[in-house]
Amino acid sequence: MDRGMSEFDLIERLKRLSKPGGPVTTGIGDDASVTVHDGPTATSVDAIVEGVHFSRRWSTARQIAQKAIGSALSDLAGMAADPGEVYVTLGMPADTPPHFREDLVDGFAETAEAFGTTLAGGDTVASPVMFVSVTAVGRAPAGEELILRSGATPGDLVAVTGEFGGAGAGLLLLDGADLSKEHRPALELADDLRGALVLRQIEPQPRLSAGRALRESGVSALIDVSDGLAADLGHVARASGVAVEIAIERVPVQAGVAEVADAFGRRPEELALAAGEDYELAFTLPGTALATVEERLSGLGCGFTLIGEVLPGQGVEVSYDGRPEQPPGGFDHFS
Amino acid sequence: MDRGMSEFDLIERLKRLSKPGGPVTTGIGDDASVTVHDGPTATSVDAIVEGVHFSRRWSTARQIAQKAIGSALSDLAGMAADPGEVYVTLGMPADTPPHFREDLVDGFAETAEAFGTTLAGGDTVASPVMFVSVTAVGRAPAGEELILRSGATPGDLVAVTGEFGGAGAGLLLLDGADLSKEHRPALELADDLRGALVLRQIEPQPRLSAGRALRESGVSALIDVSDGLAADLGHVARASGVAVEIAIERVPVQAGVAEVADAFGRRPEELALAAGEDYELAFTLPGTALATVEERLSGLGCGFTLIGEVLPGQGVEVSYDGRPEQPPGGFDHFS
Repeated sequence: MDRGMSEFDLIERLKRLSKPGGPVTTGIGDDASVTVHDGPTATSVDAIVEGVHFSRRWSTARQIAQKAIGSALSDLAGMAADPGEVYVTLGMPADTPPHFREDLVDGFAETAEAFGTTLAGGDTVASPVMFVSVTAVGRAPAGEELILRSGATPGDLVAVTGEFGGAGAGLLLLDGADLSKEHRPALELADDLRGALVLRQIEPQPRLSAGRALRESGVSALIDVSDGLAADLGHVARASGVAVEIAIERVPVQAGVAEVADAFGRRPEELALAAGEDYELAFTLPGTALATVEERLSGLGCGFTLIGEVLPGQGVEVSYDGRPEQPPGGFDHFS
Repeated sequence: MDRGMSEFDLIERLKRLSKPGGPVTTGIGDDASVTVHDGPTATSVDAIVEGVHFSRRWSTARQIAQKAIGSALSDLAGMAADPGEVYVTLGMPADTPPHFREDLVDGFAETAEAFGTTLAGGDTVASPVMFVSVTAVGRAPAGEELILRSGATPGDLVAVTGEFGGAGAGLLLLDGADLSKEHRPALELADDLRGALVLRQIEPQPRLSAGRALRESGVSALIDVSDGLAADLGHVARASGVAVEIAIERVPVQAGVAEVADAFGRRPEELALAAGEDYELAFTLPGTALATVEERLSGLGCGFTLIGEVLPGQGVEVSYDGRPEQPPGGFDHFS
């Protein structure tokens, strides 16, 4: 690989900030990390690219690190895995200021620790565009199973954690701030609501504790909502060989989303169901598991809502107050 | 993530080409792959970027896939790990022709299989510059240990597999082909030698079988030579707290490297010790292990050469015919 001294320096910095422990017996500093564990292991890879998934105009180095690691860890939450390790590959333009490089590396270490994971490996490469590629590894204890997308059965209930549309509305606000004053939509929104929507876009919070609780509660299928609720429930329907029917009016929408959608000429449902990046969990469960799910999630302070049911058939069926609707789709990020 | 339909199509293609097996119980198609194994696991991440580590002018899609996966698997060879799974994240410009995207995905599947690994996961993201980030996972059987950089002891011998300088000479040839005729250095070189040097650069062959054989032969420290022999032995010296002394004239140099170095005004030693990317293995061993190493590597048809010894102290000491020399450094790729 083509590494200048500063790349070795960054790797040294990563190494100092990395704390082996748990299943990690060798962390950063050899050809590879070494882990030992005998339960099922979940591994997911994900990348974010400057100008496509993040912008240095909107996000600090710490927030870019959180977006990269948080979205990757959300895939582990979607498997009901306990978070284990993260590995980071950083593509960096030659003109990136040294303090920004250091802040980014520090951000990886801080974010990894904040989410209960070990930063177990990393690499930096020269690149004309900044990107961060993250590998996230999580596990279930030996004898337990991870929760796949494929376990939904007709008769199951469909539920989601938290609230939707915030990340999409946050992106509209960030995009809108770049418009000249006369093109900026008129929008009255309290500062705290505005701030919460923007943070939803730039500081994703993976639902790791909720994922674990759902593993222990007998849910049948589980996915993290990164592409958009309609698309991700479509993945569950296809993998399970069932139809998923949801009632739009039951999907919890984050405060302020309706106002932002209105100002930008969008429907709130479009932001809630198609914008993605809210990193909530969607899951199916037999009715017998409902009391346990309720108890475990409320113990975590994590709200959840029943939004539909699993039927024989295929695909996602959406209704609004009982009337069938087309599932919203085609929300372009960074358009 | 921001995925157009074609990205879902590519992931579907990856999924069709991925064959779960061995420790992989769930491959591409869920939030994460699932593996179960109870021995030590090595995980390494690496990335290659267009214009920095590869060029579409020189390499086919299949060769770009081989460069990405081959160089990542070399890190596993450097741990003496048996190859397990690879995960690929592909950053792709919007104007990449569809056939090239497909060839690249097919190339990942073919290369993964050719090197005895499972393509267990992948993701594609939009990116202004093409990049491939690879996560490679390998293992040793339960009860056995992977070989780290840190086990070298004074008195050990220093050895390398194969021959050096080929990848660096190949890069000079590829760079030189871009020069106008009057600026191209005069070089008489048989076509087969020229071809072998270029392939060394664009089709890396990780030493996976040799790595495994060395694990079973009692070597004390092991590293793959990606940064350059002098730099990588420096990593061994630092991790082990020893000095590594090597005799330049003993380092095997690939046929044609001397001629290319001469034509481009470089020293052959510079290419052999500092250019990197040959993906050979460097290792240290107690004298008592020599007969076993000889037997195991010759059984694989893999040549190896003793090039020095481990001493108390620190750093890499280089001599030429008994006279101390400065270790060569500072070979710029794609300059």
